Amino acid sequence: MQQTASQTANGAEDRIWTAALVIIGDEILSGRTQDANLAYLARWLNIQGIRLRETRVVADDMAAIGAAVNACLAAYDYVFTTGGIGPTHDDITVDAIAAALGVPVVPHPKAEAVLRGYYGDRITEARLRMARVPEGAELLDNPETGAPGIRLGRLFIMAGVPKITQGMLRGLDGKLEGGKPVLSAAIGAWTAESQVAGLLADVQKANQDVQIGSYPFWREGRGGANFVLRAVDPARLKAVVASLVAALQADGVDAVEGEL
Amino acid sequence: MQQTASQTANGAEDRIWTAALVIIGDEILSGRTQDANLAYLARWLNIQGIRLRETRVVADDMAAIGAAVNACLAAYDYVFTTGGIGPTHDDITVDAIAAALGVPVVPHPKAEAVLRGYYGDRITEARLRMARVPEGAELLDNPETGAPGIRLGRLFIMAGVPKITQGMLRGLDGKLEGGKPVLSAAIGAWTAESQVAGLLADVQKANQDVQIGSYPFWREGRGGANFVLRAVDPARLKAVVASLVAALQADGVDAVEGEL
Repeated sequence: MQQTASQTANGAEDRIWTAALVIIGDEILSGRTQDANLAYLARWLNIQGIRLRETRVVADDMAAIGAAVNACLAAYDYVFTTGGIGPTHDDITVDAIAAALGVPVVPHPKAEAVLRGYYGDRITEARLRMARVPEGAELLDNPETGAPGIRLGRLFIMAGVPKITQGMLRGLDGKLEGGKPVLSAAIGAWTAESQVAGLLADVQKANQDVQIGSYPFWREGRGGANFVLRAVDPARLKAVVASLVAALQADGVDAVEGEL
Repeated sequence: MQQTASQTANGAEDRIWTAALVIIGDEILSGRTQDANLAYLARWLNIQGIRLRETRVVADDMAAIGAAVNACLAAYDYVFTTGGIGPTHDDITVDAIAAALGVPVVPHPKAEAVLRGYYGDRITEARLRMARVPEGAELLDNPETGAPGIRLGRLFIMAGVPKITQGMLRGLDGKLEGGKPVLSAAIGAWTAESQVAGLLADVQKANQDVQIGSYPFWREGRGGANFVLRAVDPARLKAVVASLVAALQADGVDAVEGEL
C-alpha cells in the first residue's frame, strides 16, 4: 500500500490517501460507450480527501478483472470498480473478484431481501443473481434500482450506469478515512504555453508544494492556456497563484486569475 | 506478447492483434478533463483489425508512466500513449518512456526541422523541447500543429488533444499489421434485461464465437435493453442475430434488429 507523506506549510506530515478505479466493460473498450464514472469519482474522492492515482479499463474477462483489482489493491488505499454487476451472463465482476481474492461467492441474505422487496412477484433467478457476493462482503445501498453494490473492506464494487454509481457513492459520503483535499485554482492567459514554458518551469521549481499544470486551447481564432495550480494548503495556493499572475504580467502576458 | 488464436468458421487459425492505451495526465485523473481519446482509438483500431484490450490512466509521474508502458508492452502487440508531449515542465512523457526503456533522450533532426518550419522566427527553446525523442524513434506526422508524435517500433507516443491525436492516427491508417476487424450488430428490445437473462445466456453458450453484451436503458418511462453481438465472421454474426431475435420474439419480447 502506498503511504506517501507530504510536507505541509505548518511542518506536519500528512498521510496521503490514494485510490484506483477499475472500469470493467467491453462496451467501454470497444468505443461504444463513453465512460462517465472516472471524472465523477475523481471529484467525489477529492472531497473525501482521497486522490485518484490510477484508472484501468479492462474487458469482461475473469483473468483481466482479477489481475487489475489485485494490482490496484496492492498499490493503493482504496479500490473502486464499476460495471459488470447486473443480471446477465456478461456480468462477471463478482465471480472474477471472488476468484482473484480466493474467496467463494455466496448469496447475501440482506441483498436477497432488498431485491425481493424491490421486484415483488417479478423476482426471477436472474435478478437473484445480483444478490451473489464474495464471502465476507457488506452491501452498498442503491437508491436507484435496488440491486446493491458491494464492499469488501477497502474494495468497492459498483454499478456501471453513472446514475446508479453516483447513488452508491452518496451512501459513502464522509464514511471513508481520508486526508486533506487537494485545492485547485486556475489562471487563464492569452498566450501560447510554449511562450511562457520557461517562466512556468521556474515558478514550479521554486514552489514544489504547489503543482502546476498547463492546458492549452485554441478559441475565437487565437491561442491561450489555462494554468491549473493544485495544493493542499490554501494560503500557499493563493500565494503561488498571485506570484504566477504577477510573473506572467511582468512578462507582458494578458493573464488573469480564473479559468478562461 | 499476447498471441491468442481464435477458431473461425472456415477452420483457419487467425492471429488476434491486441493493443493497449496509456492515457497520461493529472487533468484526466483529477476529473477536470473528460478523456475523448479512448473511444476514438478503440474504433480506429478495430478498423485496422486490432483490438483494444486494456487502457490505463496514470498521473504525470515518471515512475507511473514507465511502469504502465512497460507492463502494456509486455502484454500486447501495440501500445499507444496520449498526453504529456507538449512544451511545458509537466510534459514528461518522452523522458519517462526513455527512462523506462533504458534509452537516452536525443533531439530528432527532422522533428527540429518541422518545428522550425512551423514556428519560423517564433521558435523558442521550449518549442524545440518537442523535438526530443527516445533514441531510435521515428516521427508521426502532426497535420494540426507541427509538433510530431513519436513511434518506437510498436509503441506510439501521441498528443493528448483529441484533434491532434486523431490527425496522428490518420497518418497511420492501414499501416499497422492487424487481423480481421470485429463486426458488431445490435438488437433492441423493450424488456428488462433480467427478464431475458436466461435466454441470453443459453444463446451465448451455444454460440461461443459470437460475443453477446447486454446494455440496459430506461427511456420514455419504460425499460429496455440493447444486445450487442460481436464477431469476426459476418455470416455467423448474421445467423446469431437472427436466432436471438427469433428466440426473444418467441418469448413474447418486442425485439428488433438494430439499436434502440
